[in-house]
Amino acid sequence: MTRRTIFFVSDQTGVTAETMGHSLLTQFEDIEFRQVTLPFISSVDKAEQAVRRINATGAADGLRPVVFSTLVREDLRTVVAGSDGLMLDFFAAFLRPLEGELGVKSSMREGRAHGITNRNAYTARIEATNFALSADDGGARAEYRRADVILVGVSRSGKTPTCVYMAMQYGIFAANYPLTEEDFENNRLPTMLREHSGKLFGLTIAPTRLQQIRQERRPDSRYSSLAQCEFEVLRAEAMFRRFSVPTLDTTEYSIEEIASRVIERMGIERRVHP
Amino acid sequence: MTRRTIFFVSDQTGVTAETMGHSLLTQFEDIEFRQVTLPFISSVDKAEQAVRRINATGAADGLRPVVFSTLVREDLRTVVAGSDGLMLDFFAAFLRPLEGELGVKSSMREGRAHGITNRNAYTARIEATNFALSADDGGARAEYRRADVILVGVSRSGKTPTCVYMAMQYGIFAANYPLTEEDFENNRLPTMLREHSGKLFGLTIAPTRLQQIRQERRPDSRYSSLAQCEFEVLRAEAMFRRFSVPTLDTTEYSIEEIASRVIERMGIERRVHP
Repeated sequence: MTRRTIFFVSDQTGVTAETMGHSLLTQFEDIEFRQVTLPFISSVDKAEQAVRRINATGAADGLRPVVFSTLVREDLRTVVAGSDGLMLDFFAAFLRPLEGELGVKSSMREGRAHGITNRNAYTARIEATNFALSADDGGARAEYRRADVILVGVSRSGKTPTCVYMAMQYGIFAANYPLTEEDFENNRLPTMLREHSGKLFGLTIAPTRLQQIRQERRPDSRYSSLAQCEFEVLRAEAMFRRFSVPTLDTTEYSIEEIASRVIERMGIERRVHP
Repeated sequence: MTRRTIFFVSDQTGVTAETMGHSLLTQFEDIEFRQVTLPFISSVDKAEQAVRRINATGAADGLRPVVFSTLVREDLRTVVAGSDGLMLDFFAAFLRPLEGELGVKSSMREGRAHGITNRNAYTARIEATNFALSADDGGARAEYRRADVILVGVSRSGKTPTCVYMAMQYGIFAANYPLTEEDFENNRLPTMLREHSGKLFGLTIAPTRLQQIRQERRPDSRYSSLAQCEFEVLRAEAMFRRFSVPTLDTTEYSIEEIASRVIERMGIERRVHP
């Protein structure tokens, strides 16, 4: 298998460069990529250091590296463009057409895409994250009225990471409620949930996958037995049907995909954009 | 202030399109952007629906929308390129040069950048997220030996969101320890922390900013008084110096920036890439 080194060069965190790079690299399945982030390249001096590192890697690999750049400053881009690597320059490709369309010059300042550009948006994300954590696992039930959505499902069906992701990425207030043995015995959703029936969204999962996940957590327990997983999933799905709770099977989906689908199906407004 | 509508069109979650779009839009400070995500555009039918929506918005706004596309399939890209909007096509701009460099054709399959492309990487992120949550606020102290890094600081200095972000984005195992009154009285770090001194990283914050944050949480309490904030921050900073804990002032930084700087200064390896 070929192995290529990929550099993400940014004047700030490098998150945008990583995201766009990763998105492209997943299109090439038979190549192994070594990924190196070079963040905070904010001076000519640092840009020259980055170039030396890129060139040294190219020499060692015997193949030229690929360089994803989200550098904004013209002088820094010129320096990095002079490396031996293949430069894929995000701002060069998109900033000019955008300037033309918007009829203004960009500020050409160092990227603040992942900085505190907007104190309100930033606070919204932090508040939403704290909300997701405090309203985790049925905690702070009184808070359900503040929730944009309440994810319901059995233990380890993906509720908590999805809530945290929606909070951090979009400032969405997401609570979650883990279905318990008691709920299954009563065969109904607890009253405090039924009061918010319009906010409920059910996560379900294939019992065999659930077993794998639980097995890692508490090996060879009743909790991680296939029989228990099957029982809980069946009961949960029956409950979702009975109370008309929209559901999603999370078995084959990542957190980002679950989040996007919940947001779309529930028609939730993103409070902030990443 | 001018107002423009921006569409993020994707065959999957739209996270990449949102990230790249946002990164460019922050360069234009005097324009108000309305941002609309159109995810899961995975058929010609849906692409045509998207085009109708883009065109209707353009007609209503009286200004043509900007369309950030991360569509991979040629047929879908052709449909969306036919809208009245300005199309900024991520794959068209970068996939070709990358194919040339790597000497192979891309799979041209629908993006799985934010899907479960790699079950191990995915599991690492989920495990790290669960770790961050269970090792939050000094919980599960026995787990410190599994941590890649332990963030130390006063309440509301940014520890928890940073830990969760590093876990979710990079699969990094990050624990946190909130400094308590008891620690300040003893004027030392607890033994269980000192056993892991190589993993400690201190977060500090301007007392006036801390007060604002705490004020939102518990208004007009001792906890949110400026005197208390000043006392705690001074004591924490003295402790960091005394035990040679590297520190970062988080006052002006976003979670992404704090995370990137912690990773860089501690030399932590990213387990996965976003």
